[in-house]
Amino acid sequence: MDIRQAARAAKTASIRLAACDPQIKQTALEAVATALDAEREKIVSANRQDLRISADNDLAPPLLKRLKFDDAKIDEVIAGIKSLINLPEPVCVTQSAIELDEGLELYRVSSPIGVIGVVFESRPDALVQISTLCLKSGNAVLLKGGSEAANTNRILADVIQKASEKAAIPAGWLQLLETREDVGAMLRLDELIDLIIPRGSNDFVRYIMENSSIPVLGHADGICHVYVDRDADLDMAIRIAVDSKCQYVAVCNAAETLLVHEHVAAEFLPALQEALSAREVEIRGCGKTREFIDVTSASEKDWQTEYLDLIVSVKVVDSLSAAVEHINTYGSGHTDAIVTTNRRSAAIFMNLVDSGNVFWNASTRFSDGFRYGLGAEVGISTNKIHARGPVGLEGLLIYKWKLLGKGQTVSLYADGSRQFTHKILKKDFNLI
Amino acid sequence: MDIRQAARAAKTASIRLAACDPQIKQTALEAVATALDAEREKIVSANRQDLRISADNDLAPPLLKRLKFDDAKIDEVIAGIKSLINLPEPVCVTQSAIELDEGLELYRVSSPIGVIGVVFESRPDALVQISTLCLKSGNAVLLKGGSEAANTNRILADVIQKASEKAAIPAGWLQLLETREDVGAMLRLDELIDLIIPRGSNDFVRYIMENSSIPVLGHADGICHVYVDRDADLDMAIRIAVDSKCQYVAVCNAAETLLVHEHVAAEFLPALQEALSAREVEIRGCGKTREFIDVTSASEKDWQTEYLDLIVSVKVVDSLSAAVEHINTYGSGHTDAIVTTNRRSAAIFMNLVDSGNVFWNASTRFSDGFRYGLGAEVGISTNKIHARGPVGLEGLLIYKWKLLGKGQTVSLYADGSRQFTHKILKKDFNLI
Repeated sequence: MDIRQAARAAKTASIRLAACDPQIKQTALEAVATALDAEREKIVSANRQDLRISADNDLAPPLLKRLKFDDAKIDEVIAGIKSLINLPEPVCVTQSAIELDEGLELYRVSSPIGVIGVVFESRPDALVQISTLCLKSGNAVLLKGGSEAANTNRILADVIQKASEKAAIPAGWLQLLETREDVGAMLRLDELIDLIIPRGSNDFVRYIMENSSIPVLGHADGICHVYVDRDADLDMAIRIAVDSKCQYVAVCNAAETLLVHEHVAAEFLPALQEALSAREVEIRGCGKTREFIDVTSASEKDWQTEYLDLIVSVKVVDSLSAAVEHINTYGSGHTDAIVTTNRRSAAIFMNLVDSGNVFWNASTRFSDGFRYGLGAEVGISTNKIHARGPVGLEGLLIYKWKLLGKGQTVSLYADGSRQFTHKILKKDFNLI
Repeated sequence: MDIRQAARAAKTASIRLAACDPQIKQTALEAVATALDAEREKIVSANRQDLRISADNDLAPPLLKRLKFDDAKIDEVIAGIKSLINLPEPVCVTQSAIELDEGLELYRVSSPIGVIGVVFESRPDALVQISTLCLKSGNAVLLKGGSEAANTNRILADVIQKASEKAAIPAGWLQLLETREDVGAMLRLDELIDLIIPRGSNDFVRYIMENSSIPVLGHADGICHVYVDRDADLDMAIRIAVDSKCQYVAVCNAAETLLVHEHVAAEFLPALQEALSAREVEIRGCGKTREFIDVTSASEKDWQTEYLDLIVSVKVVDSLSAAVEHINTYGSGHTDAIVTTNRRSAAIFMNLVDSGNVFWNASTRFSDGFRYGLGAEVGISTNKIHARGPVGLEGLLIYKWKLLGKGQTVSLYADGSRQFTHKILKKDFNLI
């Protein structure tokens, strides 16, 4: 089956999946969890094969670690499916109900988006997470994983397909793509695919964004800032700076640049240097910073760089406005924090920083779907439309307008024989 | 000022406009309404100039009519602004509030999208509507109107700019573009412009969609269907078919194709022919249709055509499923209606037809923001993300996550010293 046929099959399945009985979806998710448990041996053995080939090909150790899919990982994805089962049914939820006129009722109800294309790199758990999220939200899905994980992905997709289709989910709802050429082809299928979700490195996501006319949910960069205000509690500022930078350096919500108000620079910077040295973080500072601490010089390029490493750039600013302007110029609209005891400065910062997540006295690392209590996470978006910041299941949903009439025509309203009432109704859509 | 500078000025203004006091926006809208009223003479005289030039250039009469901006039109746009003033403030509305842990509160609040690019053809009232919608929702806007309306647009933009900026709206929030080259350049400014709203002919909208990597809100086609089910009340079906086709033929929510269940074809089609002949509608039928009534033959191309004219294609189908499949194959995901007395058939149709608007026993012409009671209408979208169907002010909004802490770091949660509470809060975000 070529990619266009696969996408067409997914599109066909998506129509019936969108109208699928919630109980069937729940049963199917149970069946997928059971099947993953039952097929552990096959899955782990396929993964061992992938690990062996990748080790022979000298894949870097961190990538080998991401590729590994063992019993513990299987337990994790099964636990994920169980918590997904516990979430309320997301489809056909009434969002608004209005009587346009007597006997003419308009409902806005949630509906699946349709066909989602997911491209991810080495981690096979992404395949399980995203496909079960799509199933719960009634979306068909095209999956393309990293070639290093080809054997693992093949068995996982097969297990999920078989278990779900046996539980009466429309056949064809999940399609596994296997070649790099398939990705290129998929990115051009804008009449069949409604949304692309890329998971993986930033370069990879940027490549996807630049090569598709299909909407993409995600973020290419995570250049996050911590601004230490003139009214900051400096001990707190150290704790937040260290956590934001060091708690996990390789992730999008780690801080890359610290902005420091000049009034507190003399006191704060030496303490910061001490705390970050203990964590082996390299500091690159602006000219002003280097008047206070002995660090290498930061260039214009540093403000634009997501290090994803034990490196941080530091800039001294002369005002809250200057901090906001720096963030809006160099940031990626992901997550930015202010440390201050001044409520008004916090309010200004949170209003004027044009990012999906703006924090007062908290680490940038909190920017995450699980920590936000969203349940399962689809991804983190720096888009300005549809969904922004950490995105839960609702990122896979849109809505549909349903109008129930008794034969009304517009001509009667156009000639003034009838008037709209536009009365809000307190009831849910329910036709059968 | 070139287009990139204009967009950059709009971007800068957008940051402050997003945080603008609601009262200032209301005062500015009042000032715009007053100024439009005060400058009637200038506006009408500029428009007369445009009309004269266009008449000399042999612009078609329907386009001249759309270009006309007289006292009555000014009254209309002023009334529109008054009703916009009466809508509740849309920005910084709390959408969710959750306690992540004691003293760590997360709020999702509505926020403007940022910079909106609007491209419209001859109607100058679109300039006033869209710019005031953007003002109310806190978005900066780049406007490009039809060149036939150049003088009218220039004075309108000038009046709105001056009145709003005098009322303390950040300068630069509204930019008028004047050349066709500007549009091409604007479509490439994806780092400065967040959303494009094209208003105008379908070919025009399709051109915009195909030539920009910026998200576009709108619809290229409006191929709407009325399906007359085997259980239809046939008198009602005639009324709905006639209204859907004829009430206003040149619009996107007019029906282009009627699907008729074979069980009712013999009775329905002659009555339909009679009703549509009276309205001078040309019928193009499939083979089966032509067994019942004497009409020209419909080709494959007819099912794909938005006539926007007194022409309708008719197809006899053998089942509800065949109707659904025809609509999902040839429709544009805009608006489709079923006429039936069978509640179950209606439910199936409304679940399986993959369109933004699905109607039971009502004319497709109801698909409209004003009729839906949305207040001001931004446009009608056939997108599958962000906003679908008629879009009100909320189409110009996204949200921002605001986290209020007391110095919390993620490391404490990662090592298990603290647990998230994820308790829903019943309060609104309020920092000052």
